[in-house]
Amino acid sequence: MVPASLSVQPVVDASAWLMPWLDMAATAVFALSGALAAARMRKTLVTFMFFGAITGVGGGTLRDVLIGAPVFWMHRSAPIAICLGAALLVWFTPRRIWPEQALEWFDGIGLAAYSVFGAAKALSFGIPPLPAAIMGVVTACMGGIFRDMLAGVPSIVLRPEIYVTAAALAAGGYVALISIGAYGWAAMAAGFLGGLILRFAAIRWQLGLPAYKDL
Amino acid sequence: MVPASLSVQPVVDASAWLMPWLDMAATAVFALSGALAAARMRKTLVTFMFFGAITGVGGGTLRDVLIGAPVFWMHRSAPIAICLGAALLVWFTPRRIWPEQALEWFDGIGLAAYSVFGAAKALSFGIPPLPAAIMGVVTACMGGIFRDMLAGVPSIVLRPEIYVTAAALAAGGYVALISIGAYGWAAMAAGFLGGLILRFAAIRWQLGLPAYKDL
Amino acid sequence: MVPASLSVQPVVDASAWLMPWLDMAATAVFALSGALAAARMRKTLVTFMFFGAITGVGGGTLRDVLIGAPVFWMHRSAPIAICLGAALLVWFTPRRIWPEQALEWFDGIGLAAYSVFGAAKALSFGIPPLPAAIMGVVTACMGGIFRDMLAGVPSIVLRPEIYVTAAALAAGGYVALISIGAYGWAAMAAGFLGGLILRFAAIRWQLGLPAYKDL
Repeated sequence: MVPASLSVQPVVDASAWLMPWLDMAATAVFALSGALAAARMRKTLVTFMFFGAITGVGGGTLRDVLIGAPVFWMHRSAPIAICLGAALLVWFTPRRIWPEQALEWFDGIGLAAYSVFGAAKALSFGIPPLPAAIMGVVTACMGGIFRDMLAGVPSIVLRPEIYVTAAALAAGGYVALISIGAYGWAAMAAGFLGGLILRFAAIRWQLGLPAYKDL
Repeated sequence: MVPASLSVQPVVDASAWLMPWLDMAATAVFALSGALAAARMRKTLVTFMFFGAITGVGGGTLRDVLIGAPVFWMHRSAPIAICLGAALLVWFTPRRIWPEQALEWFDGIGLAAYSVFGAAKALSFGIPPLPAAIMGVVTACMGGIFRDMLAGVPSIVLRPEIYVTAAALAAGGYVALISIGAYGWAAMAAGFLGGLILRFAAIRWQLGLPAYKDL
Repeated sequence: MVPASLSVQPVVDASAWLMPWLDMAATAVFALSGALAAARMRKTLVTFMFFGAITGVGGGTLRDVLIGAPVFWMHRSAPIAICLGAALLVWFTPRRIWPEQALEWFDGIGLAAYSVFGAAKALSFGIPPLPAAIMGVVTACMGGIFRDMLAGVPSIVLRPEIYVTAAALAAGGYVALISIGAYGWAAMAAGFLGGLILRFAAIRWQLGLPAYKDL
């Protein structure tokens, strides 16, 4: 494997204790959103588990395959167990206890966290800034996109909602700050907060991107 | 690569002579079902070959990428040749000689065999039990899911039919028995038979899973 | 990694100076076609970039993952920068300056070039001839197929148009000539021209493959 570059090492160290927890939390939130999509479609437990798993670990899986890292849920059981657990939880509980509006805010936290986390992991594998920022977006967004493709519904990349854009701000901001020599923790905090605020603003005021208008 | 753990070695040895044949047979059955899907849609030979290949090798390909193994059909020509051959066979023969009802039973054999085989391969690469069982399901089911996504039809994970469930029983049963120290051949036989019987029962009595009912 | 086999080495050498340029040009043409698909659907800039990137680098990405090569756009920034640049270019210009008929011819050049290039790269990683030829087709065709799956429209593998067939002729012709001992540059030129002429003929006379007719 490519050794972690020196400039990235401190980032990974500084937040090493926080990372696994953020990771688990984001996986759980994404898996819940996947299982709830299956609940809305009134599918079976198998669909709940598939959607939970693919939404929870799909983005990170693609990131790891692209950057040449061992796929993160292949060498420990927790991530996939969390996904299956989330599916079971949604299956055995009434939908009304899952306030989907509230979950959207949690999903925004997961989105911002995963974007920064995915970009940081890519940098630590020696990936240059631009593709590393893309890997942040992939980590945060591809799970939901895979779920929507499986479900046969238009995914977030086809909708005007500001979602991928917030992931791009988080990942791009983090990578840009690292590139200009910022402290790892400062770049992380700024990227995370930037993406989070944009996504929260988008939820609150239903912000969307303009569609292409032929001139 | 991760060395095979000792507990798994005997499994691989005991059935080493049978594995390649099971593998080829399952690939062929899956490729036939892919090509027949193209025939039902009255598509061209290119679609037959794409569907044959993606159904035949798609699941095992994703498994190998996830567990970090060299993709199995990249270093020998037989698997992809079998897929293309199956597509040509279906193309040049009238559909009535392919009794799809009968094929469904063969597909059930392939399903049970691939689930156990995929899980065994994952274990032999040092993957822990839970993700290894998932890899069995991926091996057996993802080829057909990719085909349905390409074809734009709802895949098996959206249907109540007991199919993924039978793969999960086969892979999970095998992995559970290995984990409690069972002989490799016994775990394989039990996993295979469990999945096979459940799938056959599902075909025979059209068993399905219950859909989510909001409480 | 698998060392390049001796018979393939000269091929790679002979065209080493041309390869990166062909590669960039084909990426750009594919990315433009992806962004234009987003323009036709009147989507946002995020969709333009997603479609540009997935069409531009999708096929080569899958090839690299399958043959076990480092993913080509992970270790240099140019390919993904070209894709995002193409998306921006299409976003900021009126559609009428992009004569889609003309782009179809450029796409044909990219198709033939990528088919040969993908097969050559696979051979240089020690992949046997049949899967190497398939890797040429994957390189040339999968980007557009991923884009169509994301867009929810029937992809080229479902349409009778001669497109995948031209890629198969280019990649298969190249690999066949290499296998019988032809010079690398001769095999490349013949494969490229064969695929190009077939694709151009298909565009010019709207050639299509016959559909399956049940006997």
